[in-house]
Amino acid sequence: MQIEAGVHGFVVLGSLGENGTLTPDEKQEVVKIAVAASRRKIPVLATVAETTTAGACKFVEKATANGVDGFMLLPGMQYLSDRRETIQHFRTVAKASTKPIMLYNNPVAYRIDTTPDMFAELADEPKFVAIKESSEDVRRINDIIKLVGDRYQIFIGVDDLAMESQLIGAVGWVAGLVNAFPKETVTLFELIRTKRNAEALELYRWFLPLLHLDTSVKFVQYIKLAEMMVGCGTEYVRAPRMQLAGDERKRVESIIRSALKKRPTLPKV
Amino acid sequence: MQIEAGVHGFVVLGSLGENGTLTPDEKQEVVKIAVAASRRKIPVLATVAETTTAGACKFVEKATANGVDGFMLLPGMQYLSDRRETIQHFRTVAKASTKPIMLYNNPVAYRIDTTPDMFAELADEPKFVAIKESSEDVRRINDIIKLVGDRYQIFIGVDDLAMESQLIGAVGWVAGLVNAFPKETVTLFELIRTKRNAEALELYRWFLPLLHLDTSVKFVQYIKLAEMMVGCGTEYVRAPRMQLAGDERKRVESIIRSALKKRPTLPKV
Amino acid sequence: MQIEAGVHGFVVLGSLGENGTLTPDEKQEVVKIAVAASRRKIPVLATVAETTTAGACKFVEKATANGVDGFMLLPGMQYLSDRRETIQHFRTVAKASTKPIMLYNNPVAYRIDTTPDMFAELADEPKFVAIKESSEDVRRINDIIKLVGDRYQIFIGVDDLAMESQLIGAVGWVAGLVNAFPKETVTLFELIRTKRNAEALELYRWFLPLLHLDTSVKFVQYIKLAEMMVGCGTEYVRAPRMQLAGDERKRVESIIRSALKKRPTLPKV
Amino acid sequence: MQIEAGVHGFVVLGSLGENGTLTPDEKQEVVKIAVAASRRKIPVLATVAETTTAGACKFVEKATANGVDGFMLLPGMQYLSDRRETIQHFRTVAKASTKPIMLYNNPVAYRIDTTPDMFAELADEPKFVAIKESSEDVRRINDIIKLVGDRYQIFIGVDDLAMESQLIGAVGWVAGLVNAFPKETVTLFELIRTKRNAEALELYRWFLPLLHLDTSVKFVQYIKLAEMMVGCGTEYVRAPRMQLAGDERKRVESIIRSALKKRPTLPKV
Repeated sequence: MQIEAGVHGFVVLGSLGENGTLTPDEKQEVVKIAVAASRRKIPVLATVAETTTAGACKFVEKATANGVDGFMLLPGMQYLSDRRETIQHFRTVAKASTKPIMLYNNPVAYRIDTTPDMFAELADEPKFVAIKESSEDVRRINDIIKLVGDRYQIFIGVDDLAMESQLIGAVGWVAGLVNAFPKETVTLFELIRTKRNAEALELYRWFLPLLHLDTSVKFVQYIKLAEMMVGCGTEYVRAPRMQLAGDERKRVESIIRSALKKRPTLPKV
Repeated sequence: MQIEAGVHGFVVLGSLGENGTLTPDEKQEVVKIAVAASRRKIPVLATVAETTTAGACKFVEKATANGVDGFMLLPGMQYLSDRRETIQHFRTVAKASTKPIMLYNNPVAYRIDTTPDMFAELADEPKFVAIKESSEDVRRINDIIKLVGDRYQIFIGVDDLAMESQLIGAVGWVAGLVNAFPKETVTLFELIRTKRNAEALELYRWFLPLLHLDTSVKFVQYIKLAEMMVGCGTEYVRAPRMQLAGDERKRVESIIRSALKKRPTLPKV
Repeated sequence: MQIEAGVHGFVVLGSLGENGTLTPDEKQEVVKIAVAASRRKIPVLATVAETTTAGACKFVEKATANGVDGFMLLPGMQYLSDRRETIQHFRTVAKASTKPIMLYNNPVAYRIDTTPDMFAELADEPKFVAIKESSEDVRRINDIIKLVGDRYQIFIGVDDLAMESQLIGAVGWVAGLVNAFPKETVTLFELIRTKRNAEALELYRWFLPLLHLDTSVKFVQYIKLAEMMVGCGTEYVRAPRMQLAGDERKRVESIIRSALKKRPTLPKV
Repeated sequence: MQIEAGVHGFVVLGSLGENGTLTPDEKQEVVKIAVAASRRKIPVLATVAETTTAGACKFVEKATANGVDGFMLLPGMQYLSDRRETIQHFRTVAKASTKPIMLYNNPVAYRIDTTPDMFAELADEPKFVAIKESSEDVRRINDIIKLVGDRYQIFIGVDDLAMESQLIGAVGWVAGLVNAFPKETVTLFELIRTKRNAEALELYRWFLPLLHLDTSVKFVQYIKLAEMMVGCGTEYVRAPRMQLAGDERKRVESIIRSALKKRPTLPKV
């Protein structure tokens, strides 16, 4: 469905998503399924979110053998590595990889901040080709560009800052709600890319209450509920995650239902 | 060495420690070694810090088979479960266990807070016999006691609040610096337990700069450095953790060296 | 100088600035000077940042008598009023005013958050005509618009989010660095307003290291240093504020000097 | 009533209280009333919580003329002064004072932290005789003592850490609930001072739900409600503060009512 809608690539094994709930073997299964689904038409990136550097290198080797086109790389999970340790982790995994890497920065979720000057320091490693910026601070995008120009392709990783970010420098968007609303996501991206700002803003405003669902601790459950309500997924999650219940469920259902009621006819892009 | 010093039990596989860097098989190896070292003279607790509830149950079963006497149980790692999910996780693991369980609360590190009223709600599960309180807020101890009296044995899990906590209600201490300073730790604990407060306070004040090392993101490296400096361990850590370097290393070495220079003769307890 | 550069209005007695260091009489002196300087060509707004609601009403009455055209209104200073108290404060001051009011939201500095739904609730008071949004979260702008459409004129109050904010819905900018760089500020504003985005982005990127100075606890000293370095002000501050010294001074001087070295020729607007 | 109950001193014009809502003249009225009420039997300290250093010096001069015995000194209000500015502020006010000064540290409320090493640096000013520690981190008490021994009399300023703090080094308590429960406060203090720990702990546990009211943003309204319910005060507050209402009022009333129902017979001290 996402491919038909026109997405330009897959990122699988989302780190904040259910990556951490899968065994090493299950992760490789997901990789294989995604590679098969892509039919080599669009690139597949696998998320590297392991607790040790050695485990990250091992994952990279196996996923490469299973056909991924690149990686989205995070700091080690659980331990809050400092600047020196984080950089060392990134460099070691890069050495173990033959594929290009997108570095993922999300200090809100992981409490490890890869700051613009760290990206500048890492610029000498050619495998680092892109950044997924999810600090929720759009100023970071131009701070990176001030330091290293267009050295990295910068992707915004926060759905509800997608338009702002692309207008001032981001060239891509690693989207969350795309799982339930692929056409709207692709259309919004294309409208902004082709500078049709008024149309983009109108669509963005309709989309925002849904896009807000991407920046919550429970975004996995929220997006799965949205997928189910648009008819393209299930709500199943692994414990300790549980399906939404009570007032929280009602609140999120009502947000999704309101948006569906006013779902716009999309402009051609 | 810890047994000779008089510790009353072992807790292995510390969650903030290197638990997350071990494979399932390695964890069971650690369990076996600890059980053997205890020679059944003191109880061995194994830390349950898995990313899924199912994984936690599996760990519990294996560690029981390997001879542990009980568990220290955390919420699922990585995902920030809400109240309902956290309680469900605890109850499910309790069902899978035939051994008593100490619930571990550390919202500073894990951002999941098991509040006093949650402990009250969990009081109907007889396997939950103790609490390790590491919120860094000593008020919690009496808040729990106000709600459920002496239903739980409350252990303080924060080294540099050990004395305050025991003076106002905690009955035990899951210590960190005990790895490098077992005699001092046991002596301090016994002085407080037997109400020799003036002597305890004198020892505590000497000990505090070392005990502060327990409440840092880098406490694993700090305590391992202390172990090495007193001659009972190595500094080896798994990446992304790295051995201390530069100014940080100098600062911690200097704290440890200052304390060693004034190391007190311990009173009989 | 600001008038020549084309600013559309004055806001005096900045709340985070030195408002709190002035006596009631001094504040009215500032109002009179600003009204005289404006020569009725541009409107003058006075900031209402008192510790009590009664004091705020008194200030409003005197400043109105002294000729201001409107007010920028904050919650009471020092006390962290809750939602009910904050709304009551705003409404009471509105009753005491015959002039239009811009509500100022800055939870970063004041720890009181006037959320989008509070602005919706306050929409029935016709004196509230505008909002200065300084939450540093640009998502707020569209959240307000989703709730109340164009009921309020939304101004961005954070210099280094000026461009993002105007591109997605803000219609004005209460600027900080305008004190030292009025022409650059006005040119940037006009370029964005007239959709000359590529030129705006080029100027914005040059400007950003300076605009970052606006979002610091020390922004008063930083901007005064910039004013001095461009030859239009002094560094004098009232204690406990002190003039910058040491490494911090060097760092800020270097930022300003670098920007001046590459100061661009401004496009016609 | 407080004098009869045996308090050892008054501190008036509480900074987090209504200090900020009073005019300079009103503040001096409060000073005069307190000095008269004390009948020179107990010392009266006036809180210095002004927005400028100059204003703080002026307040000190007037309050001295009106008979206070000393001061409780805070950093300047509203502006978040840095280390250098905070120390300069303290020293300048000390120069303007002929009376001894208690330095008040409350980073939770004021976001300015006077750290133990700052107290060490300030130790050369003989007018600084005491510290009111309200960081909510009891470790600070021994950190200060480690640095400067008994150079300062350390008072705990957080009601619900009163017992812990005195047991490990604080010699005094600037109490909040003393306004409504003077006898309980004095009895608790004396029990701890005379090492009757078991009796102290029993009283403390009864008292804690009330003492928790001291560490809330709304503690002024909470304590005034308690005063009214025990029959020794009114609920009047100045806007933007409002009297408690709705669920919050019910919750606090219920806490106070529960405590009153089980009010203990106090041991002789």
